[in-house]
Amino acid sequence: MTGENERAGLFGLGQPNDAFAQYFIGQSYLNPVTTEGLGIFNVTFEPGCRNNWHIHHASKGGGQILLCISGRGWYQEWDGEPRELHPGDAVVIPPEVKHWHGAARDSWFAHLAIEVPGEESSNEWCEAVTDEVYSRLK
Amino acid sequence: MTGENERAGLFGLGQPNDAFAQYFIGQSYLNPVTTEGLGIFNVTFEPGCRNNWHIHHASKGGGQILLCISGRGWYQEWDGEPRELHPGDAVVIPPEVKHWHGAARDSWFAHLAIEVPGEESSNEWCEAVTDEVYSRLK
Repeated sequence: MTGENERAGLFGLGQPNDAFAQYFIGQSYLNPVTTEGLGIFNVTFEPGCRNNWHIHHASKGGGQILLCISGRGWYQEWDGEPRELHPGDAVVIPPEVKHWHGAARDSWFAHLAIEVPGEESSNEWCEAVTDEVYSRLK
Repeated sequence: MTGENERAGLFGLGQPNDAFAQYFIGQSYLNPVTTEGLGIFNVTFEPGCRNNWHIHHASKGGGQILLCISGRGWYQEWDGEPRELHPGDAVVIPPEVKHWHGAARDSWFAHLAIEVPGEESSNEWCEAVTDEVYSRLK
């Protein structure tokens, strides 16, 4: 696991992300940084790994912020252009916006995921990011 | 500024922290990472730099989370033991707890400061961390 630990960057690899594996293509890892005050998790994706399209619902507030820590990855909103991600980048994901994120095809990728508190918040998991969509990315 | 930029780590040095300089001993720098969703700022301290004792007030929620990015630093709560900080460490600062944070005497230090949303939140700045208290730290 040494290689994977290095690829997770500053905030650690944690454990295989089994609870959410059904919503991912490829292997990801989840490390809780804190669940006090806010939920902050380090998510590490192997090359080619990405989560399904999903939506953070909330009636007020809500959404998620990604802080990129290591490697190279992608973020895309439904009908939006893919955005290439590098360490130090921040992504503010508004509530109610369908999107996905994950690693580049040839790189591990790790980001912190910070839950923005909201009212009546829930996550809706949708379809996988197809190879057709993903293979357009460099 | 090249050296300072490297010392700020992944999330950048930003500008001299003039607005809060009155509450710091030594030079600090502030770089807003995002102010959408949550307030997230990268704070970089030169060696020996620390902020005054201060309290994050809130009637509900509130407080602050520090995520340590580079260098070596310290966090201390009033009447608590000082905690040495390294990259990858997280500090959950509850509301209403008097505390300070800053660099070690011989190291630059950078942390992300994440504001935990709260109701009726405000910051109270108190006395400086005296040389007597600070000089006990390694």
